[in-house]
Amino acid sequence: MPIIEKGRTEIHVPHWEGIEQQHGFVHGGVVGMIADSAGGYAAMTLTPPGASVLTVEFKLNLMAPADGERLIARGEAIRPGRTLIVTKAEVFAVDGHKEVLCAVMQQTIMALQGKSER
Amino acid sequence: MPIIEKGRTEIHVPHWEGIEQQHGFVHGGVVGMIADSAGGYAAMTLTPPGASVLTVEFKLNLMAPADGERLIARGEAIRPGRTLIVTKAEVFAVDGHKEVLCAVMQQTIMALQGKSER
Amino acid sequence: MPIIEKGRTEIHVPHWEGIEQQHGFVHGGVVGMIADSAGGYAAMTLTPPGASVLTVEFKLNLMAPADGERLIARGEAIRPGRTLIVTKAEVFAVDGHKEVLCAVMQQTIMALQGKSER
Amino acid sequence: MPIIEKGRTEIHVPHWEGIEQQHGFVHGGVVGMIADSAGGYAAMTLTPPGASVLTVEFKLNLMAPADGERLIARGEAIRPGRTLIVTKAEVFAVDGHKEVLCAVMQQTIMALQGKSER
Repeated sequence: MPIIEKGRTEIHVPHWEGIEQQHGFVHGGVVGMIADSAGGYAAMTLTPPGASVLTVEFKLNLMAPADGERLIARGEAIRPGRTLIVTKAEVFAVDGHKEVLCAVMQQTIMALQGKSER
Repeated sequence: MPIIEKGRTEIHVPHWEGIEQQHGFVHGGVVGMIADSAGGYAAMTLTPPGASVLTVEFKLNLMAPADGERLIARGEAIRPGRTLIVTKAEVFAVDGHKEVLCAVMQQTIMALQGKSER
Repeated sequence: MPIIEKGRTEIHVPHWEGIEQQHGFVHGGVVGMIADSAGGYAAMTLTPPGASVLTVEFKLNLMAPADGERLIARGEAIRPGRTLIVTKAEVFAVDGHKEVLCAVMQQTIMALQGKSER
Repeated sequence: MPIIEKGRTEIHVPHWEGIEQQHGFVHGGVVGMIADSAGGYAAMTLTPPGASVLTVEFKLNLMAPADGERLIARGEAIRPGRTLIVTKAEVFAVDGHKEVLCAVMQQTIMALQGKSER
């Protein structure tokens, strides 16, 4: 997972058979998973060494079929708090040079300093 | 409510006494209300004449106190469907030239062609 | 606002002219406001004396017009954590003895021990 | 997936190695996936023959580690519309007879009569 810059990440997932649903698209659950991860990693770029992050909640809108050669999820931390970090992510279905926005996510992450205290 | 461009709107709300909560900030419920409206109006710029819009659902993260001279909500339609329109909105607390992002929203709008059919 | 029991609250709002939208129903923003409040108060029944609560985020589905003599919002804390409390709320439009479920909400509340630290 | 009754479903997922995250719990993305599915299937029990369902959006709160022998997701349709169906789901981590609520979800489903029209 490449870190684009502080507060931003990008996850690339090739489209392979195991994650397809009945129509040959990537399953919505997988789309949610990589959106969740992209937001979580974006938050992680803002936490101090030794801290870990936990997804408190996320909300995902699925907008188009996750079709194409691969998926790219772009995560961004939009509110870097000490305890709570708000992020968003966009998931694109990519075919050659064409990117179609297929899902958007808004998420709350909890930063755990040292041991878990949620 | 000025329309910035097709798919985008901006709502300005002055900070007056009636909408304050106990700490002197604008109440979170009011922040939600103008975020909801900004998203709904952004969707409305994309629907045909005679159609109306209905909020199916929205999700709001409150990130900072809604303090300052006025609030500005910026709405944007990010997925213009015939039946469903996905939008987002950002709410800023404004003091002079300083804008602080105090809330973000993700929303689903239903476009009703002619009469309601939800 | 009567507390039904620990972790549960109920808010009653009469239907008066000032909160109507263009079709004579209670405005969706007001529905969100009382749902948000019902969840927040439910969380507050679980926090220690001196603590305050803050809405981190909420997600609201509007399902039917908020029509009738009054609205009742029922809030419930479903996950009482030390820092974060997850709640839900249901808003009913009431006419005589008939209650129609018009909105459901899922919410994250932050408990602040003493002073704010979000 | 057993249908408990019209509008309700239950999904059981054994805890096996492939779906664990780094701490030995079931990955949050998998929790979201089965919550999404439980809500979608609950909606499907209410649609006419030949119709299909599509997840428009969902919002998930993760509240406790998905630990134990298996996960059970219980879905319920709470607003059965012709076009949109609102559902909720609860995911429990089960160990012997002990059930711990580890996630709650609120979801919007679109019913597609015959061919897709989203």
